[in-house]
Amino acid sequence: MSQTRVLLDETEIPTHWYNVAADLKNPPAPPLGPDGQPVTPDKMLAIFPGPVLEQEMSAERWIPIPEEVRQVYALWRPSPLCRATRLEQVLGTPAKIFYKYEGVSPAGSHKPNSAVPQAWLNKIAGTKRLVTETGAGQWGSSLSFAGQMFGLPVRVYMVKVSYEQKPYRRLMMQTWGGEVLASPTNLTKSGRDALAQDPNNPGSLGLAISEAVEEVVNTPGSKYALGSVLNHVILHQTIIGLEAKKQFEKIGLYPDMIFAPCGGGSNFGGAAFPFLADKAAGDKRANNLRCVAVEPTSCPTLTKGVYAYDFGDATGYTPLMKMYTLGHDFMPPGIHAGGLRYHGDSPLVSQLFNEKLIEAVAVPQVATFEAGVMFARAEGIIPAPESCHGIRACIDEALRCKQTGEPKTLFFNLSGHGHFDMTAFESYLGGKLTDFDYPAEAIQASLEHLPKVG
Amino acid sequence: MSQTRVLLDETEIPTHWYNVAADLKNPPAPPLGPDGQPVTPDKMLAIFPGPVLEQEMSAERWIPIPEEVRQVYALWRPSPLCRATRLEQVLGTPAKIFYKYEGVSPAGSHKPNSAVPQAWLNKIAGTKRLVTETGAGQWGSSLSFAGQMFGLPVRVYMVKVSYEQKPYRRLMMQTWGGEVLASPTNLTKSGRDALAQDPNNPGSLGLAISEAVEEVVNTPGSKYALGSVLNHVILHQTIIGLEAKKQFEKIGLYPDMIFAPCGGGSNFGGAAFPFLADKAAGDKRANNLRCVAVEPTSCPTLTKGVYAYDFGDATGYTPLMKMYTLGHDFMPPGIHAGGLRYHGDSPLVSQLFNEKLIEAVAVPQVATFEAGVMFARAEGIIPAPESCHGIRACIDEALRCKQTGEPKTLFFNLSGHGHFDMTAFESYLGGKLTDFDYPAEAIQASLEHLPKVG
Repeated sequence: MSQTRVLLDETEIPTHWYNVAADLKNPPAPPLGPDGQPVTPDKMLAIFPGPVLEQEMSAERWIPIPEEVRQVYALWRPSPLCRATRLEQVLGTPAKIFYKYEGVSPAGSHKPNSAVPQAWLNKIAGTKRLVTETGAGQWGSSLSFAGQMFGLPVRVYMVKVSYEQKPYRRLMMQTWGGEVLASPTNLTKSGRDALAQDPNNPGSLGLAISEAVEEVVNTPGSKYALGSVLNHVILHQTIIGLEAKKQFEKIGLYPDMIFAPCGGGSNFGGAAFPFLADKAAGDKRANNLRCVAVEPTSCPTLTKGVYAYDFGDATGYTPLMKMYTLGHDFMPPGIHAGGLRYHGDSPLVSQLFNEKLIEAVAVPQVATFEAGVMFARAEGIIPAPESCHGIRACIDEALRCKQTGEPKTLFFNLSGHGHFDMTAFESYLGGKLTDFDYPAEAIQASLEHLPKVG
Repeated sequence: MSQTRVLLDETEIPTHWYNVAADLKNPPAPPLGPDGQPVTPDKMLAIFPGPVLEQEMSAERWIPIPEEVRQVYALWRPSPLCRATRLEQVLGTPAKIFYKYEGVSPAGSHKPNSAVPQAWLNKIAGTKRLVTETGAGQWGSSLSFAGQMFGLPVRVYMVKVSYEQKPYRRLMMQTWGGEVLASPTNLTKSGRDALAQDPNNPGSLGLAISEAVEEVVNTPGSKYALGSVLNHVILHQTIIGLEAKKQFEKIGLYPDMIFAPCGGGSNFGGAAFPFLADKAAGDKRANNLRCVAVEPTSCPTLTKGVYAYDFGDATGYTPLMKMYTLGHDFMPPGIHAGGLRYHGDSPLVSQLFNEKLIEAVAVPQVATFEAGVMFARAEGIIPAPESCHGIRACIDEALRCKQTGEPKTLFFNLSGHGHFDMTAFESYLGGKLTDFDYPAEAIQASLEHLPKVG
């Protein structure tokens, strides 16, 4: 019987996260305020607690994982590294295909990897309650779970259209004790202004961020938590790649290529960065390693965007970050992989892409679901639409290996299950899913609105 | 760090299932045909293949698990044995609480443990396609997955009201390539008759069974598969308890009490029977072991039913089985734990209960969700409504231990996650869930319709 899953004991949960900032060739570009000057820590302290900010700005290579966080991780971690033998057979490829399965977390995705330490760091900093926003609910449910683990109340501004149309993740948040509000609300000025303009405003992620941040700034004891993009979030997610490295070592293999979906970047960075640490340290096994960020053709941030300072949100509320961007007011088409509909990208992922240490590829929607269904029928697990992007790119490479005969070792991050996305599969199976043309004109238009810096 | 999960490597997947029939004090009562005579194998062969029937009637204690089945099991098995340390702390109990988590399977419950071997045994018997029925979709999705693993087409008659109101599990079946029909259909006489009486017939499990069996009898190459009640199904589910025994051995513990939900019996039998094997073999650790089947107060088969021959289905289509029953036309109230709404019980579970080798307890609906939410907030996993029954009984015992100071080792089977049952949690959290009075009159009425035998 060939080995299917490589497991680690919970004593093997890594003791430190990996901070790729320590291995960058050039110093990271600082976030800038509205005045064009680097944002000072005291301004950030209004919304994030000290221990989180410390990690956000750290240049240390290895950052210890608090014991209390490792204990909560142990509820589902280490997650399994699985060999997709049946998928290899279906494809007839000589490549070995491995995936890390993050859907085993209580919330069903990789998001709790950062929600748990963020809740803990807030707890020890004396934060009394956490406020955040969520779109379809992946991040909001993860933070609700994490807050519950440490007795920290969580309020979630959930985009109203999702609140109404996607009740299941809202119900998960409530089951874990999270308070969920349909955004826009009457509780904030941003919300009231939006409702004054249009009482039927369906909400947006940008507006929900504005409401959450506004409440935090005006409510002592409250802090804000973000689920992707920022350095500390990607730091926490490196638990994925660090475990995977131990698991590959157990079976005497090392990946030739790594694939992960890339929206805000925490999924990709979490899986790939720990392997880049080997490259930086001169480990020969990593000499020819290729890390591929996979994005939708309808929101091609790395493959079609520009590397520039831009706002992190749609309305220009956040500091300016140096990143690949399609323009902060670019509105991606409504693909099912909501987690990849982001105009920008993590500054760390962006810098590494700019320095050609990582690659990127864009894949169209229908092909991602084709790959997801092929995977489900071979391996059982039904993947989230975001995860289907990584699977697509990995299958494409496995098929190339079939042409060339190369027995490459391929690794992708299966970031979550699709249990709450089954209607997307219904559209695909019913032949109702479409691709979107490359939105060249919309990107051109939004890039004209990039803020001027320096 | 105290150990949270006890893991086994896939080489430790048991090589044999345990057949409790070999350890019964009295011979099992045979199923009877309409003529009151024991059903002959050739009649059964019209709907089940030889290798399945062989297991159904076997008196062997240990039955080998085919290598092909173990390879598919390895996609998610061995499942983890987890210690609910956080729940113990919330309860303030000196008891140690352990649970086996079966929600890690692709279908999210314990059902694939039997779907996979049934698909394989059909495959080697030359079956060309499988036909089954499903209510909310747990069994239909598991069999669709299992059929896909061995290239066997699967048709599922799904109760129409669930087909329309619970699309997510239907979509899982379709994603795995299963063909799903809303029952009643026009394809069978049973379906046509029902539709002739009422074109808007919402369907029922009994009717869906009739359609599936009718089609199989009339379609060469097709066979039927059932997800609970029968001996071979419980046999396959013993993989749960057999793994748990290995896991308890690793940590040097042995359970004092075992709790599992009991509808058709495969969940309970699968978890408990392998420990009864120790008792039968004179293992001293099992001397005082207590196994508790947990059922809803609204469908109290073991606790309020009679031990008698009755039909397995509502309409009197199946052979008569000796079992605890509330009467085959007893219609339980519409509780959310659909898997426990069954008028009868497995003949094996029934006989063991009658011989006082196991116990039973009934718990009311609201208390089960209270327990489920308490568990989710302590341990993360959101349990299925059926699983909440086992949790409730286990928590009650843990609270008794708090009174007495006994440091008992308690074990329950967490048979599945609640991702597709979130609206049930909405009802509970919104205070809209009710208990049902003990349906004494309805039970009295249906018991009057028990078939006369001998």
